Amino acid sequence: GRRGRWSWRVPVLLLAYLVYVGLGAGVLQALERPAEVRTARRLLQQRWELLANHSCLQGPTLQRLIQLGAGGEKDEGEGISCAWWWLESLSCNLDFTSQLWKCQLCEVAMTEFVGSHVIVSLQGIIEAYKSGVTIQGNSTSLGRWDFSGSFFFSISAITTIGYGNLSPSTVAGRIFCILFALFGIPLNLVLLNEIGQLMLLGVQRSAHHLEEKFHWKIKAALVMKTCALVTGLLLFLLLPPLLFSSKEGWTYEEGFYYSFITLSTIGFGDYVIGMNPDRTYPNWYKNVISVWILFGMAWLALIIKFCINLLESSSDFCQCNRKSIESS
Amino acid sequence: GRRGRWSWRVPVLLLAYLVYVGLGAGVLQALERPAEVRTARRLLQQRWELLANHSCLQGPTLQRLIQLGAGGEKDEGEGISCAWWWLESLSCNLDFTSQLWKCQLCEVAMTEFVGSHVIVSLQGIIEAYKSGVTIQGNSTSLGRWDFSGSFFFSISAITTIGYGNLSPSTVAGRIFCILFALFGIPLNLVLLNEIGQLMLLGVQRSAHHLEEKFHWKIKAALVMKTCALVTGLLLFLLLPPLLFSSKEGWTYEEGFYYSFITLSTIGFGDYVIGMNPDRTYPNWYKNVISVWILFGMAWLALIIKFCINLLESSSDFCQCNRKSIESS
Ligand SMILES: [K+]
Ligand SMILES: [K+]
Repeated sequence: GRRGRWSWRVPVLLLAYLVYVGLGAGVLQALERPAEVRTARRLLQQRWELLANHSCLQGPTLQRLIQLGAGGEKDEGEGISCAWWWLESLSCNLDFTSQLWKCQLCEVAMTEFVGSHVIVSLQGIIEAYKSGVTIQGNSTSLGRWDFSGSFFFSISAITTIGYGNLSPSTVAGRIFCILFALFGIPLNLVLLNEIGQLMLLGVQRSAHHLEEKFHWKIKAALVMKTCALVTGLLLFLLLPPLLFSSKEGWTYEEGFYYSFITLSTIGFGDYVIGMNPDRTYPNWYKNVISVWILFGMAWLALIIKFCINLLESSSDFCQCNRKSIESS
Repeated sequence: GRRGRWSWRVPVLLLAYLVYVGLGAGVLQALERPAEVRTARRLLQQRWELLANHSCLQGPTLQRLIQLGAGGEKDEGEGISCAWWWLESLSCNLDFTSQLWKCQLCEVAMTEFVGSHVIVSLQGIIEAYKSGVTIQGNSTSLGRWDFSGSFFFSISAITTIGYGNLSPSTVAGRIFCILFALFGIPLNLVLLNEIGQLMLLGVQRSAHHLEEKFHWKIKAALVMKTCALVTGLLLFLLLPPLLFSSKEGWTYEEGFYYSFITLSTIGFGDYVIGMNPDRTYPNWYKNVISVWILFGMAWLALIIKFCINLLESSSDFCQCNRKSIESS
């Protein structure tokens, strides 16, 4: 009975969860993508006008200004010149012979550059850069409301982590986001609860095996509990920072901070994985992180539940003591 | 027994909660404030050097650039000129006759302005502006890690809302934040649970009264439940947006979105109350919002729990049906 119940419940729930998140991601993408594309189009038009009116711009200085505006601390160095970045974005999106512009890139007086109407263009570029409409490498990655980004956003919403690096900007998107979260949060809680129960069951079974093998009684449960705690600590909090430091370039301390802030569902959003445009991430990366988030949240919820039980039982213990003192 | 238990539990827990949050806020302030003050000092020094080296700067253009850099969409207009902003920040923090500089503010070539070492200063100013070290009105508000900000941050951390508009930047601050949340989250959950139980008890009692008065049986519980739902909806989701639209200038839809995203503990941080430097907020505002958050989260948690019960009972119902079909 009990075993059979577990065996179908978690996979079915997980499937329902994935379908729900997938559908939500699709709808959100459909709602948010057009607005984003409009922003991107406006950006490209502004670039076009900027180039058309000023023929060419002081490459590195402009790049520097855009970096400044976007708050990028990373100095992308001399390697990627503004000219290149500029040309790429144009050649990818406008039917345009880039070679012509490439040779025209030269010096322009910055006084002219900061002229009133050009600064509007710059503002558009900075805003677009900030909202993720950046051009990296050879391909234009127009924004973040692609399916992968939308999927990650949906998970961040219904787990209530809510990093906030991406959030709906249209009214329809916001209303859908509210409805999606209203039914998604309970679904997520049910799934997490099932995963937690599965983990507990695993610990109990292992304790039972240990008991039978070594004829321990109380010891077995204690050993297994500490084992589960240590394994969980290693898998969910102590080892992931090593992965993050290799893939994101964070220090160990930053990775640990990110892990805790994520799994506790606080999600400040000061550190978010997969967001560094200068880095390339393997395909399995986001999937592994998603699994880590689900199991890690279930594990941390168990720990927090355990803490609450301790708190409640100690308060009940105090109350009992008081009563027994009063009655004696 | 039961009534006596409630009468002391919630106030004691609330007191413990406030003491815990207050202590945490104090420690966080002590850990984060020095780093913030250092940043602010560096900013002021950079300003000083900028002025010293360039004697004066093109006021509005610089203001415009800083706004651009900080991503401020609000056009602060011609009213507050850069010169004024500039002078105020200097006169408040350095022993300095501002009148001298005021008359010196004039034109400077922007080519000079974008020179390599000046841009470092600009970067510092933009970063500081972004991290909230802005000067508003007549007083310098050096940063956001004052006690009020730290208190609001602490509540946002242990409720797991985690807006992320403020987050610890020092290693010590981050480690303390993790420890603080580790014990704070269970405490918050226990308090929310108690508040939720108190709300449920209130509904049950009202239903009981109704039952006795009108001799209804099933009707009374149903009426009270819908009453509680409607009251909760009004108090926690439908009326607060009106307050936000008057105090923050948001539209009703934005206020509703903020309310839901906050109470569900998602907390994207795209909308946060009390963060608009152009607005003045009454003293009671943040306190009222804190109470709203606590009671609203408890209410929404009850609703979500109710949804989960529906989900689980429907899944059990399915299972029972299947069993009865199998056995028949
Ligand atoms: K959150
Ligand atoms: K958050």
